[in-house]
Amino acid sequence: MKVIIIGGVAGGATAAARIRRLDEKAEIVILERSGFVSYANCGLPYYIGGVITDPEELTLQTPQGFWNRFRVDVRVRHEATAIDPAGKQVTVKNLETGEVTVEGYDKLLLAPGAAPTRPPLPGLDSPRLFSLRTVEDTFRIRSFVERNRPKTAVLAGGGFISLEMAENLAEMGVEVTILQRIPQLMNPLDYDMATFLHSHLRRKGMHLRLNTAVAGFRQEGETISALVEGGEAIPADLAILAIGVTPENALAKQAGLALGSRGGIVVNQRMETSVPDIYAVGDAVEIPHLVTGENTLISLAGPANKQGRVAADNICGGDSRYLGAQGSSVVKVCELTVAATGLNEKAAQAAGLSYEKIVLSPLSHAGYYPGGKLMTMKVLYEKGSQRLLGAQIVGHEGVDKRIDVLATAMQAGLPVTALKDLDLAYAPPYASAKDPVNLVGFMAENLEQGVVKQFHWEDVAGLPRDGSVTLLDARTPGEYSGGCAEGFVNVPLDELRDHLGEIAPGKPVYVMCQSGLRSYLACRILAQDGYDCYNFSGGYRFYESVLL
Amino acid sequence: MKVIIIGGVAGGATAAARIRRLDEKAEIVILERSGFVSYANCGLPYYIGGVITDPEELTLQTPQGFWNRFRVDVRVRHEATAIDPAGKQVTVKNLETGEVTVEGYDKLLLAPGAAPTRPPLPGLDSPRLFSLRTVEDTFRIRSFVERNRPKTAVLAGGGFISLEMAENLAEMGVEVTILQRIPQLMNPLDYDMATFLHSHLRRKGMHLRLNTAVAGFRQEGETISALVEGGEAIPADLAILAIGVTPENALAKQAGLALGSRGGIVVNQRMETSVPDIYAVGDAVEIPHLVTGENTLISLAGPANKQGRVAADNICGGDSRYLGAQGSSVVKVCELTVAATGLNEKAAQAAGLSYEKIVLSPLSHAGYYPGGKLMTMKVLYEKGSQRLLGAQIVGHEGVDKRIDVLATAMQAGLPVTALKDLDLAYAPPYASAKDPVNLVGFMAENLEQGVVKQFHWEDVAGLPRDGSVTLLDARTPGEYSGGCAEGFVNVPLDELRDHLGEIAPGKPVYVMCQSGLRSYLACRILAQDGYDCYNFSGGYRFYESVLL
Ligand SMILES: Cc1cc2nc3c(=O)[nH]c(=O)nc-3n(C[C@H](O)[C@H](O)[C@H](O)COP(=O)(O)OP(=O)(O)OC[C@H]3O[C@@H](n4cnc5c(N)ncnc54)[C@H](O)[C@@H]3O)c2cc1C
Ligand SMILES: Cc1cc2nc3c(=O)[nH]c(=O)nc-3n(C[C@H](O)[C@H](O)[C@H](O)COP(=O)(O)OP(=O)(O)OC[C@H]3O[C@@H](n4cnc5c(N)ncnc54)[C@H](O)[C@@H]3O)c2cc1C
Ligand SMILES: CC(C)(COP(=O)(O)OP(=O)(O)OC[C@H]1O[C@@H](n2cnc3c(N)ncnc32)[C@H](O)[C@@H]1OP(=O)(O)O)[C@@H](O)C(=O)NCCC(=O)NCCS
Ligand SMILES: CC(C)(COP(=O)(O)OP(=O)(O)OC[C@H]1O[C@@H](n2cnc3c(N)ncnc32)[C@H](O)[C@@H]1OP(=O)(O)O)[C@@H](O)C(=O)NCCC(=O)NCCS
Repeated sequence: MKVIIIGGVAGGATAAARIRRLDEKAEIVILERSGFVSYANCGLPYYIGGVITDPEELTLQTPQGFWNRFRVDVRVRHEATAIDPAGKQVTVKNLETGEVTVEGYDKLLLAPGAAPTRPPLPGLDSPRLFSLRTVEDTFRIRSFVERNRPKTAVLAGGGFISLEMAENLAEMGVEVTILQRIPQLMNPLDYDMATFLHSHLRRKGMHLRLNTAVAGFRQEGETISALVEGGEAIPADLAILAIGVTPENALAKQAGLALGSRGGIVVNQRMETSVPDIYAVGDAVEIPHLVTGENTLISLAGPANKQGRVAADNICGGDSRYLGAQGSSVVKVCELTVAATGLNEKAAQAAGLSYEKIVLSPLSHAGYYPGGKLMTMKVLYEKGSQRLLGAQIVGHEGVDKRIDVLATAMQAGLPVTALKDLDLAYAPPYASAKDPVNLVGFMAENLEQGVVKQFHWEDVAGLPRDGSVTLLDARTPGEYSGGCAEGFVNVPLDELRDHLGEIAPGKPVYVMCQSGLRSYLACRILAQDGYDCYNFSGGYRFYESVLL
Repeated sequence: MKVIIIGGVAGGATAAARIRRLDEKAEIVILERSGFVSYANCGLPYYIGGVITDPEELTLQTPQGFWNRFRVDVRVRHEATAIDPAGKQVTVKNLETGEVTVEGYDKLLLAPGAAPTRPPLPGLDSPRLFSLRTVEDTFRIRSFVERNRPKTAVLAGGGFISLEMAENLAEMGVEVTILQRIPQLMNPLDYDMATFLHSHLRRKGMHLRLNTAVAGFRQEGETISALVEGGEAIPADLAILAIGVTPENALAKQAGLALGSRGGIVVNQRMETSVPDIYAVGDAVEIPHLVTGENTLISLAGPANKQGRVAADNICGGDSRYLGAQGSSVVKVCELTVAATGLNEKAAQAAGLSYEKIVLSPLSHAGYYPGGKLMTMKVLYEKGSQRLLGAQIVGHEGVDKRIDVLATAMQAGLPVTALKDLDLAYAPPYASAKDPVNLVGFMAENLEQGVVKQFHWEDVAGLPRDGSVTLLDARTPGEYSGGCAEGFVNVPLDELRDHLGEIAPGKPVYVMCQSGLRSYLACRILAQDGYDCYNFSGGYRFYESVLL
């Protein structure tokens, strides 16, 4: 059996290694357009920033190493330019020599990934404008930075690649401006959760230009300016274009493979394309979203690796299935950890799902043990079924842990209230006896059983301020005097019972505190005294971040 | 409704708070023998070591705070001395005044916890011998240490309380000796996994006396000696007795409540005891182990808190269920993190389960990103059903995350091979694209599908060294020369294919490498060349720790 693999990184290289493990006799050829295989895409920004210092760290295998260990024939700087599915042949161009050859296959695996999105805008060929995908891109940016010592950079795009670049440039002393078309960074988050990131980056001295669409670039001398729709151009020494990635589907298209509505290659659970003996994996394919069941593009290394292994199994005659992904992701941005899994509100709404949301701000570990850090968590679940739909967390230590626990619970199909029963490991340096994930379960149960009702930041502006409802702030006078939501009157929780007589009977009561915990307790006191009352989800801490 | 709660900490205080949230009108009384409620048992060792400096941090609530917030009548220094279930009365002794009163109840909750085990040994009343359970114990040890500046300490017991004390004393410069009756510390681990902890503590300068049963203590002047069965007494300035905890069942016994075979109070899923209107939670009760279904004692704060909430719901007329725990636990011991969930081999054997084990040593995060640390993981699953039985991890960062993910997968009932599909969040500072948990799934699948067979450290001594089997070490010559298992011949993996002709045909081949990965690759090469071969589980790294 001869297997040709197009693309030799996350999906392709993993598949090659697995094919060799399953079939010592197969002839395996990797065609890789760039000069490197098995490179650590995800590590590239950190080489630019000097966090990773040895360029050898950027590649997990070399062509020679791949041969020695796996007898895989890796041809870097070789581009597959055409596929002939009927004749089972690939046309290959040696990018060093220009030579074009034709290579037959029994099985073909497409793992070409996704390329940085390049809309038809002026100025994209400027030598001061960079995108980041390959090791070569990395070296190019690194040497530009070393040579030119830029003082300012403008980055178009608010996704994780842009933010990792922003962090790394900022840590080198570069003044960073980020342009983002929509009102928020990091699309896996909802706007409200993203506000924590926005303020963090602004405190770090970055300039965020949200709601600002880049219209192109213009280079004049040593300055590159990002052109902005309906606004003034933003000059900088360096520009990065990182507004997303687009599946590399040109070969697939040419070969007549079915493409999905998002431009990704269509595959089944065996990672087979619409054409026999051609498989595809990674950023180039559309896969089912585990929550919606809809086909989607998920450009992440975990899914690419898993799909590569599944494809390899099937290429070798096995029967493995890839069921889909739920978009679990995490990114470090200037000491902040931002993580998500499943659907956010935008996606749940788009999917027509009816959901409930839970917001809390637990400590990463027990408060009495030094060093605990607050995190902000938002968890969505489906009304009725209690199915977990998604989670978003912004914070520091412990964020990656909770997102993985929630992702696991979600993938396993646990209902949100089952989170209260999870037997998680507790010691003061790591967690609390009531882990944040357990708290989500408690809070969901309270909502589901009608123990408490809640209201959200979106509702605050619309609350009547004409005395027809009571607005209470249950924090201490000290906290309250530091800032409060308009019209909310301070009655500290611990004094509430003594002031019940002063709260207008028969009128709904809306209660806010700092995190949502004390206002929950206040709601319980009020509800049992006959009031119709509502707890502010996320507390003033959330309100302040989102609305002020 | 009048509720009396005996014991005002993890289970009792949580129940009190929840009862108040559900029933604003209930009369709630907490009887607490010690001088403090809602204290952070788990934080106590860190106060002794000076990691927690403010004594107020040790209590999450005070009696006054409990009254102000929850209208709970907390009576510290009050001991419940008898229960009259028929008359629904508790006899209470005020430990300050000696006054004895009788208090009626509608519902009674027992949350008395477990006391440090005190076997009938001589010398337990020495003023230089301490146990650690309450805030008072903590202050007593702390002030002894401050006053006497002990240079040496001997600790009886190898569980987490002893080890946390050992860490905290060692960090104050005290020379620590730990006595443990069995051959290993930390019973939730198997012996092999515990060896990583043993060597770590020895490197830190601690003296471990394993297989050493303490026979009592003898104080002479300023020296307390731990007496050792069949050995010389070990003198020290200070001794700690922490050989386990025993459920406080005296009251329950007196009241005629059913007790389990392990001495814990018998409860149903509603946390009801055998006597109407009496509930019990926490360290004092026996609960079902989620893996074996057997009743067991689990003395941990997470379960106690959850049980407290369940009991409260039911006391207030609800119907909540506590299904059991699986012993998820984590402890920090001198920079090392030790975690476990479910069954270890000892427990699986005792339960008569037929299991397979997987050992690996992945990095906490991607190797190319600085700071990744090796961890050692062992995962057990049931043969046939592929049900996850348990996991143990020893390492640094990322250990607590993986144990919680595994605990969640286990509790959700995922089979071990489903771990390969878990969509976990990956970025270089947090994980690898193939997360350690995914690797467990891959490795289990390989075992289950017969892609590889393995052998274990227990098997090595019994391998014939007479040439009837081939013993291969697939590491590099450099690694090999640093130490190898007896009789294993070095053939580096990358040269194996060139030396296949030299490996005796028809004989079984046993292969070892450093972690188990390269020897797996070697096994795949050999197996496809017709050899019957076996991969050494855990690699030389594991072998060395366990056997050398
Ligand atoms: C800067 C950066 C940071 C990232 N960080 C993270 C992260 O933290 N976490 C995460 O999960 N994911 C991250 N990703 C995404 C992750 O790297 C991708 O999802 C993953 O690599 C996709 O794998 P793949 O095999 O589909 O494609 P790739 O890994 O992109 O490999 C495709 C390869 O195919 C080659 N190729 C394409 N067409 C041809 C052709 N016609 N002929 C020959 N070769 C061809 C390309 O040169 C490329 O090398 C990051 C990506 C980048 C660029
Ligand atoms: C030093 C130490 C460290 C620990 N570290 C951890 C850890 O890291 N992680 C973890 O999960 N668990 C840890 N634990 C265990 C955890 O604290 C217990 O599992 C948990 O507190 C049990 O809760 P409980 O409510 O059953 O009992 P407890 O919290 O022990 O409370 C019982 C209370 O009842 C009182 N009492 C008993 N009898 C009577 C009576 N007759 N009348 C009145 N009052 C009475 C006692 O004084 C005691 O205060 C640790 C325990 C200790 C001692
Ligand atoms: C380098 C590369 C080719 C290695 O691929 P690989 O061999 O499949 O991956 P690993 O080295 O992690 O090894 C995993 C295999 O070893 C096995 N394994 C891991 N540890 C083991 C152990 N201790 N004992 C036995 N087997 C072990 C796993 O089961 C798996 O084998 P399987 O797929 O046959 O089940 C590939 O990972 C790569 O190119 N990576 C870089 C590209 C990339 O992923 N970029 C995106 C992220 S930055
Ligand atoms: C202090 C103590 C009495 C508090 O008990 P508690 O009120 O049940 O616990 P918490 O303060 O964590 O609050 C949890 C409650 O608030 C709710 N909650 C938490 N955050 C919330 C938020 N942001 N919004 C709304 N509700 C929230 C939870 O749902 C839960 O309520 P529920 O049980 O009614 O569902 C108790 O935890 C205690 O005594 N602890 C110390 C003893 C101990 O546990 N020791 C062992 C470990 S060291």
